[in-house]
Amino acid sequence: MITAIVYGDGETTEYDDLASARAAAGTTWIHATEVTDAELDAIADEFDIHGLAIDDLGNDVRAKTEEFPDHTFVLLKTATLARGETTFREEVATSPVGIFLGDDWIVSVTTGAAPVVERVRRAVASGDERLLHRGADFTAYRIIDVVVDDYFDLLDRIEDEIEAIEEDVLETPDRATLERINSVRRELLSFRKQVWPAREAVGVLARGDPDEVDPDTEKYFRDVYDHLVQIADLTETYRDLVSGARDIYLNALSQSTNEVMKTLTVVATIFIPLTFVAGVYGMNFDPAASPYNMPELGWGYGYPAVLVVMALIAVAMAAHFRRRGYI
Amino acid sequence: MITAIVYGDGETTEYDDLASARAAAGTTWIHATEVTDAELDAIADEFDIHGLAIDDLGNDVRAKTEEFPDHTFVLLKTATLARGETTFREEVATSPVGIFLGDDWIVSVTTGAAPVVERVRRAVASGDERLLHRGADFTAYRIIDVVVDDYFDLLDRIEDEIEAIEEDVLETPDRATLERINSVRRELLSFRKQVWPAREAVGVLARGDPDEVDPDTEKYFRDVYDHLVQIADLTETYRDLVSGARDIYLNALSQSTNEVMKTLTVVATIFIPLTFVAGVYGMNFDPAASPYNMPELGWGYGYPAVLVVMALIAVAMAAHFRRRGYI
Amino acid sequence: MITAIVYGDGETTEYDDLASARAAAGTTWIHATEVTDAELDAIADEFDIHGLAIDDLGNDVRAKTEEFPDHTFVLLKTATLARGETTFREEVATSPVGIFLGDDWIVSVTTGAAPVVERVRRAVASGDERLLHRGADFTAYRIIDVVVDDYFDLLDRIEDEIEAIEEDVLETPDRATLERINSVRRELLSFRKQVWPAREAVGVLARGDPDEVDPDTEKYFRDVYDHLVQIADLTETYRDLVSGARDIYLNALSQSTNEVMKTLTVVATIFIPLTFVAGVYGMNFDPAASPYNMPELGWGYGYPAVLVVMALIAVAMAAHFRRRGYI
Amino acid sequence: MITAIVYGDGETTEYDDLASARAAAGTTWIHATEVTDAELDAIADEFDIHGLAIDDLGNDVRAKTEEFPDHTFVLLKTATLARGETTFREEVATSPVGIFLGDDWIVSVTTGAAPVVERVRRAVASGDERLLHRGADFTAYRIIDVVVDDYFDLLDRIEDEIEAIEEDVLETPDRATLERINSVRRELLSFRKQVWPAREAVGVLARGDPDEVDPDTEKYFRDVYDHLVQIADLTETYRDLVSGARDIYLNALSQSTNEVMKTLTVVATIFIPLTFVAGVYGMNFDPAASPYNMPELGWGYGYPAVLVVMALIAVAMAAHFRRRGYI
Amino acid sequence: MITAIVYGDGETTEYDDLASARAAAGTTWIHATEVTDAELDAIADEFDIHGLAIDDLGNDVRAKTEEFPDHTFVLLKTATLARGETTFREEVATSPVGIFLGDDWIVSVTTGAAPVVERVRRAVASGDERLLHRGADFTAYRIIDVVVDDYFDLLDRIEDEIEAIEEDVLETPDRATLERINSVRRELLSFRKQVWPAREAVGVLARGDPDEVDPDTEKYFRDVYDHLVQIADLTETYRDLVSGARDIYLNALSQSTNEVMKTLTVVATIFIPLTFVAGVYGMNFDPAASPYNMPELGWGYGYPAVLVVMALIAVAMAAHFRRRGYI
Ligand SMILES: [Mg+2]
Ligand SMILES: [Mg+2]
Ligand SMILES: [Mg+2]
Ligand SMILES: [Mg+2]
Ligand SMILES: [Mg+2]
Ligand SMILES: [Mg+2]
Ligand SMILES: [Mg+2]
Ligand SMILES: [Mg+2]
Ligand SMILES: [Mg+2]
Ligand SMILES: [Mg+2]
Ligand SMILES: [Mg+2]
Ligand SMILES: [Mg+2]
Ligand SMILES: [Mg+2]
Ligand SMILES: [Mg+2]
Ligand SMILES: [Mg+2]
Ligand SMILES: [Mg+2]
Ligand SMILES: [Mg+2]
Ligand SMILES: [Mg+2]
Ligand SMILES: [Mg+2]
Ligand SMILES: [Mg+2]
Ligand SMILES: [Mg+2]
Ligand SMILES: [Mg+2]
Ligand SMILES: [Mg+2]
Ligand SMILES: [Mg+2]
Ligand SMILES: [Mg+2]
Ligand SMILES: [Mg+2]
Ligand SMILES: [Mg+2]
Ligand SMILES: [Mg+2]
Ligand SMILES: [Mg+2]
Ligand SMILES: [Mg+2]
Ligand SMILES: [Mg+2]
Repeated sequence: MITAIVYGDGETTEYDDLASARAAAGTTWIHATEVTDAELDAIADEFDIHGLAIDDLGNDVRAKTEEFPDHTFVLLKTATLARGETTFREEVATSPVGIFLGDDWIVSVTTGAAPVVERVRRAVASGDERLLHRGADFTAYRIIDVVVDDYFDLLDRIEDEIEAIEEDVLETPDRATLERINSVRRELLSFRKQVWPAREAVGVLARGDPDEVDPDTEKYFRDVYDHLVQIADLTETYRDLVSGARDIYLNALSQSTNEVMKTLTVVATIFIPLTFVAGVYGMNFDPAASPYNMPELGWGYGYPAVLVVMALIAVAMAAHFRRRGYI
Repeated sequence: MITAIVYGDGETTEYDDLASARAAAGTTWIHATEVTDAELDAIADEFDIHGLAIDDLGNDVRAKTEEFPDHTFVLLKTATLARGETTFREEVATSPVGIFLGDDWIVSVTTGAAPVVERVRRAVASGDERLLHRGADFTAYRIIDVVVDDYFDLLDRIEDEIEAIEEDVLETPDRATLERINSVRRELLSFRKQVWPAREAVGVLARGDPDEVDPDTEKYFRDVYDHLVQIADLTETYRDLVSGARDIYLNALSQSTNEVMKTLTVVATIFIPLTFVAGVYGMNFDPAASPYNMPELGWGYGYPAVLVVMALIAVAMAAHFRRRGYI
Repeated sequence: MITAIVYGDGETTEYDDLASARAAAGTTWIHATEVTDAELDAIADEFDIHGLAIDDLGNDVRAKTEEFPDHTFVLLKTATLARGETTFREEVATSPVGIFLGDDWIVSVTTGAAPVVERVRRAVASGDERLLHRGADFTAYRIIDVVVDDYFDLLDRIEDEIEAIEEDVLETPDRATLERINSVRRELLSFRKQVWPAREAVGVLARGDPDEVDPDTEKYFRDVYDHLVQIADLTETYRDLVSGARDIYLNALSQSTNEVMKTLTVVATIFIPLTFVAGVYGMNFDPAASPYNMPELGWGYGYPAVLVVMALIAVAMAAHFRRRGYI
Repeated sequence: MITAIVYGDGETTEYDDLASARAAAGTTWIHATEVTDAELDAIADEFDIHGLAIDDLGNDVRAKTEEFPDHTFVLLKTATLARGETTFREEVATSPVGIFLGDDWIVSVTTGAAPVVERVRRAVASGDERLLHRGADFTAYRIIDVVVDDYFDLLDRIEDEIEAIEEDVLETPDRATLERINSVRRELLSFRKQVWPAREAVGVLARGDPDEVDPDTEKYFRDVYDHLVQIADLTETYRDLVSGARDIYLNALSQSTNEVMKTLTVVATIFIPLTFVAGVYGMNFDPAASPYNMPELGWGYGYPAVLVVMALIAVAMAAHFRRRGYI
Repeated sequence: MITAIVYGDGETTEYDDLASARAAAGTTWIHATEVTDAELDAIADEFDIHGLAIDDLGNDVRAKTEEFPDHTFVLLKTATLARGETTFREEVATSPVGIFLGDDWIVSVTTGAAPVVERVRRAVASGDERLLHRGADFTAYRIIDVVVDDYFDLLDRIEDEIEAIEEDVLETPDRATLERINSVRRELLSFRKQVWPAREAVGVLARGDPDEVDPDTEKYFRDVYDHLVQIADLTETYRDLVSGARDIYLNALSQSTNEVMKTLTVVATIFIPLTFVAGVYGMNFDPAASPYNMPELGWGYGYPAVLVVMALIAVAMAAHFRRRGYI
């Protein structure tokens, strides 16, 4: 769906026709949402937009800024975390936002619904002062700004997940914890793929390379650029946090194995020698055949003596293990 | 096999002879496939191609763009994943595609069959509008474009393998899984060796450094360059994914060892003390010799009492292990 | 709370009113601490400060230096280690210090109490020679210098923690040690996020890019820049130290498991065969039924012979284990 | 030993004396092999070679290209893999090859035998067309080319070792495998120390920085530079391959421990309860003292019943372990 | 202690007074060792040295080269390995060497004894040709050169430690080995902190940026710079070697655990079933009560048969374990 508005000097007018919108005095903003191929062709014809740029909107292309002789093309992506089990490609759902920025016109194209861009359009329609009085480049800044602000929301959700994992890993580390860790790791990898190109793309505008960017607007793009630097920074830092959580998880597992082994060792090491002693006095050598054959069996205090010896062995070994910190 | 065509103004003519093809008006395209040394020499003579460039086609040289006084030499590699067990060198099968780009001529040389280049040649032969009306540099772009598009297919196959591994690692991790992980790791290493030089080589064309590249064609090369950046990006990201799968695999092994130990510990720790108790009452001290010798054996409820004590010990330890999460 | 002072030629005068302070001869320093929105607006009006810079003070923005047509904006952060259990965001508590540096004026704004800046203000008020006779840029240097000096204190605390961990890890490694290691790791990650942008921001001043920085003052900013380079360096080095401590911790755990297993193996391996031998002579085959049925039971030296054999087995195995270094 | 030849226009003349060789028309090539200090001094005097460059030949200095007012100094190293156990310093045996390149003269100096350089000298002596007709810079290229070609042989040997390790690690991983892995790792580290400086050194020549390098010869140096880039690339890739082999080795060890534990757990967990049951019926409670004392012993089917119960327990547990994949 | 000498044209004169030394014809070298604050102030006054540079000598500042209007300040550090147990800060003991290089004067300042600088001073005093006839910059080169040469000694000691560790790790890996590994790791980290800034500082001189560096002297600084590049290189390579040794150590531990487990598993798995069999025939079922109750006990060959069965089981299991490589 295409909407065409022209604004300036505090007024906004809607147009039905691309050509007359472009010709009208003021800043022309063509916004095409959930755009069809036919609509794209019409826009490309009217504003002399290169076929390669049109192709980029349809394919899964990295964010970028490309300068053409009479306009600048900015391609950004909205990004949303996918819920539930996903393949890597689907971890972060993206949708392209194309901005064609001319002298006194701007064309914005989205293949999806793009409610964030809609918010900017409503601000213009409702006569937002700053948007109406500044040129097309300031409107481009606002669109890019709202897209990038959404990145912070995505990072906040990831940060919440990481805090939850960090608690989980200390309290109830299990197989599910590792799957959560891996899931966040994939989300960060997937998000990072979006952030770095976006940072480069906005960097071009922040340096004021394209003619269509007014020197006064540069510092606004620099502000968005700062945000993208911060987002890229956080993405890397979060990767480090996640890898710290993973280390603690793996350590918890080793620690558990260590403790299991200690339990076994303590019990087996105490009882195996005792069982041997009991086994010895369970042998059937015939005391009648010789005085050397198990005379203990006939002693008056043989049984209590053996019990006492066993108890002493057990106590000594338990004390030994306590000293070693096993129990 | 050498084919020579000349095209321009919508028409395509085939030639038998290199010299007259070069002399004819229009864009001359010499395409040599499964080229022999003799054919290479003939082409090099006709188009003044440097011996070092000819050598590069025969040897296993990295992709590159090299500018010569009157033409530019672009060397790319087609890449195909080898199936089955392979040495590292064979993981990704490559075949060179050499492009010599002059003012109004282009020579393309492949040592293998190179069906992707053949596709472009058929498009020219069948009168593809865009190819016929643009110069030699646009034809070079098309050849490079189809070669690079094949890289995406290769990456898609690798991505499928990774998705399969990620499932495998969660469901049936075993030695074979690790071998699959290592195999993809090697494929990515091997592919990466192809991608980075290709990216540099196309970058030279995208910046429009060679005189033979028309300013209008630059943005087409920039488009291929963007693809190669994306491919390089994905290669790195896939490496990270594979290393995540490897971590989960290794963890599954540790987890398995941990569980095996728990099983042993629970069974051994419950039964070893019980066996000891049974051993004690299996001793042969002579109750007749003294009232202190195993009087329990003569008690009326001695046996049931021991059984009850054993059962209590077993229940207590099982409860303990359940609390610790061992069972 | 806003304070306004004007100084130069060894004298300092306080003003109640921004406009007259600015107009007065000498260097004007407006310092706003725990600033309110209304105060910020008043300052921004008087000194033509851009709205984006004002926004940056309120939000959690990375340190930076930004040049505006008639002044330079420097944003730094004070940093304090949070005590106790914290989320990642809270590990290092930061508070913004904004400095707007004009020709002959400087505005400093803090949203918190900022006692370090207060120290500089008191030095001016009490007639510190160097501050009074040099321009606004030197005062900016002093503020930045005291903020950065505090970073060294933070690093000293982290270094103390690391030394303590390194001892702990050698003497009493346990779960708490790992949590300490992870805590320092997070602190370093969090601090690093502050240091790198600060380094870039001061680098701009050290290169003398802004007009407001006098060539004579450049070397002072270079001095602060050197400190920030050293701080960034130490942060990375400390990360390496912490990861070394982590390795030793993990190794201590493996070593412990290894020793536990050795204990179990020695005891079980010695006693299990002995218990078997005892078990054999505890069998109830009837010697009366046949001369082949356990004739040993009736031998005169059967029992002592078995005890000697058992002792020999035990001694031989113990010697074997001693040779292997198990005991 | 010093040899002096002068060539050009298809002819080669040998000289006994440095000064007359230099003065003669044509390209002068002084080649000193297994050079003595006295020979070096004589050469340095005749060709005004700086003492620092002479020092570099004697010491273990990184490869480099250094421009002097009237000549360019290129220092390369031949590299050979040491066989058997070596200290790190000896892993890759290197020998310096110094090239001093003047307008119409070239001096090559080796401290060892350097058969690769000898090959080039014989080509000149036997009237190799290309060498005789091109200047001193082309001869320098040929020397550098043969030195670098030897690097590929070294890499081939390393690749063979890696392939052997990769098989070994899958089939018979043991302690020796790890030592092989570590040995290749050290060889790669040691070789890498040679490759990177060589790449930089040849890069200077490939860019045509020194005056002594003719524009026509630049592309030959670029060819060697391409080889060195490929060699550096392979070195890094081989490091990754080796670290993959190491991972598989370590995993094989964990897997082995896991399987050992499973064996123990299965056997112990099946027999320990059975042994307990046997122990119970080995107790000596006196059935005569009370009807509650082990009445089972007197039952007609007591023994077969116990055997059946034991067999059922064993079968159940074996089935359980089979389900868990332990056996 | 301050010494002042003036030299040139082969002669060296000592002076008592800074001002007259500076005024005298020839190169003036002021050398202050174990310098006091008062001495520093006197020197700073006479040679117009900036207070920040004086401060840098007292504090623990990174090596650097800083250009001032009429002189260049070079700050280097001597480095010595600390012996025995140390905190991280003390691993490498450093002591600053400050060099102020003017047109025809040089001031060198050390806070410690600095015997390496003393060596250079004695060379001048004893009339070393090269030092006397070249300017102040050559003397600066000599001082820097001797300081950097000492770095190689430090690296040699580290290399010896690494070789010792590599042997230790293969022959007697124990807890002490890991502590040695960690100690070298810390030394390398600490040394690296010194090397990188020194490399940058000398790089400035090697590029000939400061006016005080004569073009002829540049190549001497380049020589020192090459050494520092090589030192930095070796530091990184040694880090890799140490991490290789650490891997082998950790593997030795895993291998040991694996072997311990194998020992236990073999012994337990062989004897536990045998003990069970013995336990069965130790049961007290009454053969008199029924012909089904342990009739084996009354058989003529019962006992030998059981022994043979046990021996067969033991031999079969031992053969199984030998096939699996456990024994
Ligand atoms: Mg997901
Ligand atoms: Mg977890
Ligand atoms: Mg970061
Ligand atoms: Mg990071
Ligand atoms: Mg990263
Ligand atoms: Mg990172
Ligand atoms: Mg990092
Ligand atoms: Mg394969
Ligand atoms: Mg797997
Ligand atoms: Mg990436
Ligand atoms: Mg990556
Ligand atoms: Mg990598
Ligand atoms: Mg990576
Ligand atoms: Mg904390
Ligand atoms: Mg610890
Ligand atoms: Mg560092
Ligand atoms: Mg780092
Ligand atoms: Mg670092
Ligand atoms: Mg690091
Ligand atoms: Mg590092
Ligand atoms: Mg070796
Ligand atoms: Mg191996
Ligand atoms: Mg590589
Ligand atoms: Mg590497
Ligand atoms: Mg690598
Ligand atoms: Mg030490
Ligand atoms: Mg060791
Ligand atoms: Mg290195
Ligand atoms: Mg390294
Ligand atoms: Mg390195
Ligand atoms: Mg490294």
